[in-house]
Amino acid sequence: MAKYLTEDNSIQAVLARINDDECSPRFRRIMTALVTHLHDFVKEVELSQQEWDVAIDFLTRTGQTCTPERQEFILISDTLGVSMLVDAINNRRDTRATENTVLGPFHVAGAPELPMGANISLDGKGETCRFSGRVVDLDGQPIADARLDVWSDNAEGFYDVQQPGVQPKWNNRGIFTTGPDGAYDFVGIKPVSYPVPVDGPAGEMLTGMGRHPYRPAHTHLIVTAPGFQKLVTHIFVGEDPYIDSDAVFGVKESLMAPFQPLADGDTAWLCPFDIVLAPESA
Amino acid sequence: MAKYLTEDNSIQAVLARINDDECSPRFRRIMTALVTHLHDFVKEVELSQQEWDVAIDFLTRTGQTCTPERQEFILISDTLGVSMLVDAINNRRDTRATENTVLGPFHVAGAPELPMGANISLDGKGETCRFSGRVVDLDGQPIADARLDVWSDNAEGFYDVQQPGVQPKWNNRGIFTTGPDGAYDFVGIKPVSYPVPVDGPAGEMLTGMGRHPYRPAHTHLIVTAPGFQKLVTHIFVGEDPYIDSDAVFGVKESLMAPFQPLADGDTAWLCPFDIVLAPESA
Repeated sequence: MAKYLTEDNSIQAVLARINDDECSPRFRRIMTALVTHLHDFVKEVELSQQEWDVAIDFLTRTGQTCTPERQEFILISDTLGVSMLVDAINNRRDTRATENTVLGPFHVAGAPELPMGANISLDGKGETCRFSGRVVDLDGQPIADARLDVWSDNAEGFYDVQQPGVQPKWNNRGIFTTGPDGAYDFVGIKPVSYPVPVDGPAGEMLTGMGRHPYRPAHTHLIVTAPGFQKLVTHIFVGEDPYIDSDAVFGVKESLMAPFQPLADGDTAWLCPFDIVLAPESA
Repeated sequence: MAKYLTEDNSIQAVLARINDDECSPRFRRIMTALVTHLHDFVKEVELSQQEWDVAIDFLTRTGQTCTPERQEFILISDTLGVSMLVDAINNRRDTRATENTVLGPFHVAGAPELPMGANISLDGKGETCRFSGRVVDLDGQPIADARLDVWSDNAEGFYDVQQPGVQPKWNNRGIFTTGPDGAYDFVGIKPVSYPVPVDGPAGEMLTGMGRHPYRPAHTHLIVTAPGFQKLVTHIFVGEDPYIDSDAVFGVKESLMAPFQPLADGDTAWLCPFDIVLAPESA
């Protein structure tokens, strides 16, 4: 190998600098793969100096768009399918169990603990929907003390934290804990589709690729129970116009729930959805 | 292909969303290679959720470390050898011509235009050095009206822009223009090695890999002349202890100049260095 970096030896020239005495094996493995793919990418597309300038500026502005309320790098990861890939790799589970999907940026810890049947829609907007089902193990046995942390947007497509002072605090959020029968039941709204924020670098990237920024309507859930793997998922509205083109690639066939119109119920819709948890050891 | 993103089809699932009617062929090519390498990287190392969190935080802090005076993403690109690779790809030239190397973050446009022989070291610190040579074409013919924009650190290893109010403005900077003989000649200092900034994310990355942050001593030059390719390069002090481990991989064998001690000269050192420019059309 040539002594100094050339177009041909660039990957080896960088990797040769890693000092095994001071670099953990895991960091070495990650940096080796990262440098290799980064250099191969630059070589494959023969990145111009001006394109490199644009990339540096894009990354810089992405970091500077982040605030305590907004994470633009996560949005870039989401819209490039990276978040869902990482989620898939880290949540390989028994096919009988409910599948994971992305957490998203709008979860807030500490939502109110509510009794079964409670209504989490505090602004009274939107079409009411009863969510109802059981939390069970792989054999269909009910799981007691399962904790469901649920949240969704409101009828205008915004989460409460995106509109402080406009929406009531904890609007469309709540925590429910199952009894011995594993059943859950609460009232919220039939969620609506909404665009991810497009007034920053992620929006520029989507526009450049000719992609829309919409997510199909969904209600988020985190379900935990002692002895079981944590489930982070969504219940999707299957007939949503964006169901096959989710901007963050979060949709899975098994996560589309029926939303059944109720002519004479106390809510406009019923969404039956059972949740199957995988054991922690599996 | 499965309809929704899975671990196996993740690259295709993302690329299928590019809309050719609205995406330029070049952006399509770049994003296709980027998504492919990004997903392959994540799959190869089986990135954990926690490692992804660390990566998002690292990128965010890198963007937020950038200021008008500091570009941390360029530093990451430099220390991963990406800047030098881009430079190499974009400056393939006749082997007789002087080689390019990285611009670095400390160039400032508008330095004083000075007569040949002038001294650019305004703080009077360091070992004086006369830089002298000719600017010629590939056939060795002198190039008139070649403009040399030169800059270096001071004897303490800092550029003037890193120490406003401490160093005189334009310390160790100047612009010189050749006459019909192509000769140039100016007095500066024998430059000293210095560390790139390590108080940010790039420093964490270097530490994690067990790498030092030093650059071998060098004087920067941008040389332009009508009808010739722009040359962005350094003159390196060959005997520098960091010459074989430049933190930004900028060293090339051909850019090491002799620094000759002068027992009885008006400067402590003489650095003879001829510059060969490639024609614009080549």
